[in-house]
Amino acid sequence: MAEVRLLGVSGSSYSRRVEWALKVKGVEYEFIEEDLQNKSPLLLQSNPVFKKIPVLIHNGKPISESMVILEYIDETFDGPSILPEDPYERAIARFWAKFLDGKCLEVVGKALWSKGKKEKQSIQQEAYEMLKIVDNELKDKKFFGGDKIGFVDVAANYIPFWLEIVEEATGVVLVTSEKFPHLCAWRDEYLSCSEVKENLPDRDMMLGFFKAKVQAAAVLNEYLLK
Amino acid sequence: MAEVRLLGVSGSSYSRRVEWALKVKGVEYEFIEEDLQNKSPLLLQSNPVFKKIPVLIHNGKPISESMVILEYIDETFDGPSILPEDPYERAIARFWAKFLDGKCLEVVGKALWSKGKKEKQSIQQEAYEMLKIVDNELKDKKFFGGDKIGFVDVAANYIPFWLEIVEEATGVVLVTSEKFPHLCAWRDEYLSCSEVKENLPDRDMMLGFFKAKVQAAAVLNEYLLK
Repeated sequence: MAEVRLLGVSGSSYSRRVEWALKVKGVEYEFIEEDLQNKSPLLLQSNPVFKKIPVLIHNGKPISESMVILEYIDETFDGPSILPEDPYERAIARFWAKFLDGKCLEVVGKALWSKGKKEKQSIQQEAYEMLKIVDNELKDKKFFGGDKIGFVDVAANYIPFWLEIVEEATGVVLVTSEKFPHLCAWRDEYLSCSEVKENLPDRDMMLGFFKAKVQAAAVLNEYLLK
Repeated sequence: MAEVRLLGVSGSSYSRRVEWALKVKGVEYEFIEEDLQNKSPLLLQSNPVFKKIPVLIHNGKPISESMVILEYIDETFDGPSILPEDPYERAIARFWAKFLDGKCLEVVGKALWSKGKKEKQSIQQEAYEMLKIVDNELKDKKFFGGDKIGFVDVAANYIPFWLEIVEEATGVVLVTSEKFPHLCAWRDEYLSCSEVKENLPDRDMMLGFFKAKVQAAAVLNEYLLK
C-alpha cells in the first residue's frame, strides 16, 4: 500500500490543489479516483463529517479539506515551501487563500451559474469587484507570494483553468485582459508551470461536463415552468 | 503606541476569539472598540477587502480574519501552544476549526434566526445534526485537544456563551443536556477557564442587544406584510 494516497476526482479543482502541492514537494502518491454518485466505503469512513473529496491518507491516517491538507503537506514533507517562512507573510498568505477559497469562489461561482436578468447583473457586478481585488493584488507580481507558485496560487487554482471552461459552457464571460490585465498575466504564468500544465484535467472532457450541466439546468428549468 | 492593538467589538465572538488567544499567550494588548455603524479610518485602511473586525495590528502591521490571526498569534508569541505540536494533530485541529467556524456556525445561526414553520423545522434538524457531530467529537474529552483550551475550542467559542443568549432572545432552544451531554459538559469547563470567564461580554447587555434584534425583525416583518 502506498504511503501517500489521495482520494479525489481528477476533474475537481479541490483535488488538483492537493496534487499540485504534492508535485511541488516531489511527493510520490497513489491517486484513487472516486465516483461521487457511488462513494467508496474508504471515502465515507475517512471523511465521515463531509463525505467529500479530497482526502489525503498518509500512513493510513486521513486528512480532509483541501486547504487543511495543503498546510499538512507543507509541514510534513521536505521540498520547496508552499507557505512563506515569515509568520507575518504566512498570515497574509492565509488571508488571501481564505478570500479566494471563500467569498471570491462563492461569488464567481454564483455569477457563472446565475439565472434571471436582474439577479445576473447584480451578482456579476459583485464578481467583477472580487476579481478586481485579485487583479490589484497581482499588480507587479509574478505569483501571489513572489517568483514561485505557492499557497495562495494553489487556493486560486479555479481561476486559471476551470473558470475559462465554465465561461465557454455558460456563455458568461467574466475575465478579459482589458478588465483584469494582472490576473491574466498571472494566469499565463500559472498555466506554464510544469507542476500545473502536466497535471491538468482534459479540457475537452471538462467542457463536455460543464455543457451537460448547462443543458441539464435548462431542461430542469423548462420542466419547472410547465 | 502599544505594540499589539486589536480593533474589535467587545460583544463579538470573533473579537473574543482573538482576545482569548492573546490571554492564553499572556500578551499585553490595547483593545480599540469599533463602532460598526461608523467604522474608523484605521479599520477601513487595515482591512480594505472585508472592512471587518477583528484586526490585529502588531508593530504597525495589520492582520485580518480571526482564524488567521489565531495562527499568527500562535506562531509569533511565546507561551502555551494554541495549536498542537504534531503536524497530524494540527491538521485535525484545523479541520474541526474550519467545520465549527464554517458549516456549523452557518447552520446554527440560520436555525436560531429562521422564520416560517417549514423552513424552521428543516434548518433546526440540520442544526441538531451539526451539534450532534460536535457532541460526539467531545465524548471523553475535556477540551477538543486535551486538557487545555486550544485552537478548536476558541473557534467554537460562540457555542458556550452566545448561543444560549440568542436562544433566550429568540425562544429557539437547540442545546439541552439531554440531547448533547458531552457538549454541555465541555461548555461548563469552557466557561470556568480564567481566560474566558474574566473576558466575557456583559450577559445582560448582550441579551438586550439580541432582544432588540428580534423586535426589529418582527417590526420589519409586520411592515412587509402590510
